[in-house]
Amino acid sequence: MGSPARVSMGDAWSWRVHPDMESERRRPSFDVERLTNILDGGAENTALRRRVESIIHSDPEFSLKENYFMSQNEHYEAGVKKKFHLQMLARRLGWSEGSRELRYAFRAVTGDLALGLHHIFSKSLQSLGSEEQIAKWAPLCDQFRIIATYAQTELGHGTYLQGLETEATYDADTQEFVMHSPTLTATKWWPGDLGRSATHALVLAQLICSGARRGMHAFIVPIRSLQDHSLLPGVTAGDIGPKMDFEYIDNGFLQLDHVLPDGTYVKLGTAQSNYLSMVVVRVGLLLDEINPLLEKACVIAIRYSVIRRQSRLRPSDPEAKVLDYQTQQHKLFPQLAAAYAFHFTGTSLRDFFQESYGAILDRDFSLLPELHALSSGLKALISEFCTQGAELCRRACGGHGYSKLSGLPSLVSRVTASCTYEGENTVLYLQVARFLLKSYLQAQASAGSASKTSLPRSVAYLTAPDLARCPAQRAADFLRPGLYTRAWAHVAVRLIRDSAHQLQTQMQSGAEEHEAWNQTTVIHLQAAKAHCYYVTVKSFAEALQRLDKEPAIQQALQRLCDLFALHGILSAAGDFLHDGFLSGAQVDMVRTAYLDLLFLIRKDAISLTDAFDFTDQCLNSALGCYDGNVYERLFYWAQKSPTNTQGNPAYQKYLRPLLQSWRSKL
Amino acid sequence: MGSPARVSMGDAWSWRVHPDMESERRRPSFDVERLTNILDGGAENTALRRRVESIIHSDPEFSLKENYFMSQNEHYEAGVKKKFHLQMLARRLGWSEGSRELRYAFRAVTGDLALGLHHIFSKSLQSLGSEEQIAKWAPLCDQFRIIATYAQTELGHGTYLQGLETEATYDADTQEFVMHSPTLTATKWWPGDLGRSATHALVLAQLICSGARRGMHAFIVPIRSLQDHSLLPGVTAGDIGPKMDFEYIDNGFLQLDHVLPDGTYVKLGTAQSNYLSMVVVRVGLLLDEINPLLEKACVIAIRYSVIRRQSRLRPSDPEAKVLDYQTQQHKLFPQLAAAYAFHFTGTSLRDFFQESYGAILDRDFSLLPELHALSSGLKALISEFCTQGAELCRRACGGHGYSKLSGLPSLVSRVTASCTYEGENTVLYLQVARFLLKSYLQAQASAGSASKTSLPRSVAYLTAPDLARCPAQRAADFLRPGLYTRAWAHVAVRLIRDSAHQLQTQMQSGAEEHEAWNQTTVIHLQAAKAHCYYVTVKSFAEALQRLDKEPAIQQALQRLCDLFALHGILSAAGDFLHDGFLSGAQVDMVRTAYLDLLFLIRKDAISLTDAFDFTDQCLNSALGCYDGNVYERLFYWAQKSPTNTQGNPAYQKYLRPLLQSWRSKL
Repeated sequence: MGSPARVSMGDAWSWRVHPDMESERRRPSFDVERLTNILDGGAENTALRRRVESIIHSDPEFSLKENYFMSQNEHYEAGVKKKFHLQMLARRLGWSEGSRELRYAFRAVTGDLALGLHHIFSKSLQSLGSEEQIAKWAPLCDQFRIIATYAQTELGHGTYLQGLETEATYDADTQEFVMHSPTLTATKWWPGDLGRSATHALVLAQLICSGARRGMHAFIVPIRSLQDHSLLPGVTAGDIGPKMDFEYIDNGFLQLDHVLPDGTYVKLGTAQSNYLSMVVVRVGLLLDEINPLLEKACVIAIRYSVIRRQSRLRPSDPEAKVLDYQTQQHKLFPQLAAAYAFHFTGTSLRDFFQESYGAILDRDFSLLPELHALSSGLKALISEFCTQGAELCRRACGGHGYSKLSGLPSLVSRVTASCTYEGENTVLYLQVARFLLKSYLQAQASAGSASKTSLPRSVAYLTAPDLARCPAQRAADFLRPGLYTRAWAHVAVRLIRDSAHQLQTQMQSGAEEHEAWNQTTVIHLQAAKAHCYYVTVKSFAEALQRLDKEPAIQQALQRLCDLFALHGILSAAGDFLHDGFLSGAQVDMVRTAYLDLLFLIRKDAISLTDAFDFTDQCLNSALGCYDGNVYERLFYWAQKSPTNTQGNPAYQKYLRPLLQSWRSKL
Repeated sequence: MGSPARVSMGDAWSWRVHPDMESERRRPSFDVERLTNILDGGAENTALRRRVESIIHSDPEFSLKENYFMSQNEHYEAGVKKKFHLQMLARRLGWSEGSRELRYAFRAVTGDLALGLHHIFSKSLQSLGSEEQIAKWAPLCDQFRIIATYAQTELGHGTYLQGLETEATYDADTQEFVMHSPTLTATKWWPGDLGRSATHALVLAQLICSGARRGMHAFIVPIRSLQDHSLLPGVTAGDIGPKMDFEYIDNGFLQLDHVLPDGTYVKLGTAQSNYLSMVVVRVGLLLDEINPLLEKACVIAIRYSVIRRQSRLRPSDPEAKVLDYQTQQHKLFPQLAAAYAFHFTGTSLRDFFQESYGAILDRDFSLLPELHALSSGLKALISEFCTQGAELCRRACGGHGYSKLSGLPSLVSRVTASCTYEGENTVLYLQVARFLLKSYLQAQASAGSASKTSLPRSVAYLTAPDLARCPAQRAADFLRPGLYTRAWAHVAVRLIRDSAHQLQTQMQSGAEEHEAWNQTTVIHLQAAKAHCYYVTVKSFAEALQRLDKEPAIQQALQRLCDLFALHGILSAAGDFLHDGFLSGAQVDMVRTAYLDLLFLIRKDAISLTDAFDFTDQCLNSALGCYDGNVYERLFYWAQKSPTNTQGNPAYQKYLRPLLQSWRSKL
């Protein structure tokens, strides 16, 4: 537990752990270090991670200290600086692209690195390029002799690939492609590293041959001089300006005025290979980027809540820790439970993906639709819940959660972006809904016929025997994973059936298929969400079954799993009551079980957040450090703000004239 | 409608309205100008507001153009500058404190003014001070010969007044009070204008006389020199650093080391007068600060959604306006409905307050508990929904909603603060819950006795005859305000009864009262929220009944009222199904009615947002201007970003060395 190395050093107050924090760690009900090892996937990973973190944190080039006081330009410069130093460090220490060391380094610098799209360019090239193209471009990429980005979205076009306007016209005379942005809305907009850094872009464009449109293709286009970094002729590019976060990335715009690409064009992949690369990207996102933001928010808010005292539980008592209030537990513990749920679900998804990868390499794409649906659905669910959860954590810190020094505003802004990037969540849920409809119809057909075709694993429950009524008779019955997993399965099946039925009804009453779909999407959305929640509950519960050699940890996590499942039931109680699957009395039992769980989880709360093992440096929060010295840190950090160090010209210009303006009225 | 004066001028593209926007305004189903007049409370108010707005917008000192590119220091300076110019303007034009003109000016500058706490100080002085004190300080305040703030919250203490640590010790020898911050956590923290502007602060402190603690009192403490603005001896003060928004305010900290106050102490008021001033502040907040943020978010997102096109509804069609997708309507229209609901509910609350004001001035405080509960509950509900709604609007704009140039990030950050300031929402809901419990017990007692005591108006429904089952038989039945208002009343009563019962059960099983309360707060919260939703539905419906002379407007708004009520029922369907008040089949009817309403509201959407009549200047959004020229504005605004105008030192420092680093490996 609480190794002294976790405690910040420097100021006098940072040498001791706050007594209110210390008392929380005094009698942990499980071995926190062991849980950290489990989360890391083994003690050797924990050790390696800590080695990498200590290298990063001891190097002043990677300091995050000034983060809250920088302008967008300064953030960008710091992002480029860190990327440069990390690149040099990686070369020196032999950390290769995709290695565990680099993943841990990324965690330690909290991802604030420029030139992230270079890697995406490189991956796209590997999967889409010809051997000749790879031979030419891969070494240039690997050695950073070029800086590359991937330019897809346009000012007027996002998710819908076919709507992109950028044109690549084949000129039969010169045998060249000519890249052109025919309208303002065709301007490439948002690609990372494009605004100020990239020398080359993989540009998605509409291919036009002899006047005929041939769909989307990708072209490598040089945009900045390798000599002096100036924009090449015909290229207009720049930064898209201020955003909610990610200021260290120069998201940019690009207009092409009859520009020639370099290296001819790259065909877009098959539907299968496109799916596959999306799956890879999403699985990585969930575990390495999205969920850690919620984990950190939980660490900060829960640690702060055992230091913050407010009001009295009993008139004669001293002020109580705010974490002892039921309402505070109700705000925070469902978020902590979700963070654990998503860790284990994301891990299962990654394992499933790796299992199936062999088949995919052998060109057996039969698992791809399911992998695509699972990764889409879990990306949507996890990003949605992480966003909502991180904001709840932020708000649970009251006024101090509004200060950037808490670290929470930045976490919230960053996680909220994940609802939009890599597939907007509504679009993703609707893709899941189509998969569910198809699976449902398949299940129906198979039920009627003699030959049973088997459904993909994640939707096998569509044909499993269903209960019409939940058998629970007392609150404790709702603590059985089998029971609540089946309850979620029941609701998901009902909603999927309902959405199929509604679609059919619309079409039978004369609507065209597309029209009928649009008029029922709100219903499909609901079904897709219930399915994703079911998948998460199920895989969290299954992961915990495998922890039977760690009974103390298993018990602590089982409560979180129960809480996650029951909080979900209470939040969507209408869906469970709708057909009488649960009675009102049973919903009350769920509530009783839920409130009891809050009380039980309370004593493990700090251990469960410590186990994530985030260093103080990478939390970078005045409220959330390991030592609990919240107020000292808030006070001393505020002193460094430019609002305190750069003088106050407003006094001479306006305040003094205002204070003296009464004289003119005498 | 669409008066040309509403269209931005300057760039060529800003002279014409985008055809996709123009078509939306072609055949409005009601007179938009008339609705604007209703929202303003009369045509003469609309005219006055536009006069004030045109004065403000034609004065370059109030320009918001640079807002998205400023540092915190620059924001603060701009905030002080605007306050100074507005003060001079107000003197010149005779706009007095509290006048309609100043309210409209505040709207036109979008509230970005420093020195807002001066006014609070002044009000507190008027209500708490002695005649002598008022005679001394009021003129100094009015003429800005001092700049004052109100310092209550401390680093370690917020909502719970009795927990404040700052001490005022009476020294019987010198007959003076000595102000002191005995600990770090006693540091005053967050007060606006304190960090860099104020010369005086009204400091809340624990009074100590002959060693005995005498509770909270307020003291006027000079903190900065009126000569040169330097901090006075014993005073440590500064800015608390970066926040999510409100950067134009210097929220500050203050430590007092045995400082003498000026003007002796000011007694805190009675419970009644404290309640009253909170009610006044909250009613003002709802109508002038909180709800307009949601209204603006709706205007921006809905206007953008008729310009943005994405994907196809039918394969042969051109790309569709995103507002034509059911999922987009489902995201945005409930927010629009909420904005209207809160406008009318806030107005009713203000009217009720003004009605009762006479009695209060005559020292009849009998209405105060209800006014307090109503204003607390509506503040909590409205700030919660406005925050959630503004964020949904932001996210409905996809990637561009993440750009600060959309205006949405700032609106969201600002409205989210309202969940915490002026009473943290959970604390407020629980105050409402106590009021409801008391009223419920009163209703029970009265039901048993012969003498009926009448309940406060807003809880009179606790004794009204209740239905066990909702009588609706088809979807259209749910469009009757009487029906859904009674449905909400039923659910609120049931939840209040349940929470009283749960509390009693806890106490009967041996828990102390405080313990029992804490173990049931999650349940009380739910009851309080249902009550507040009921109040809102009811007062929205009642306000629309009074619009019978404007049938076209009444019809358009009635759909929003229906949508608001039904969206609430669907979101909390479990509460309606719990005791069988609604059946599953009836919930499906609600859903059908709800989806039909989305379709009907679609054609009025732009008119309903135009009616708020926000100028382009005060929306300050690249996505939300009246003319619909979204992409042009986004593109040209981005060019002005310092990321494009200040060069790129990162190239020489890091990018070039990186691009050339391969040479060293040769």
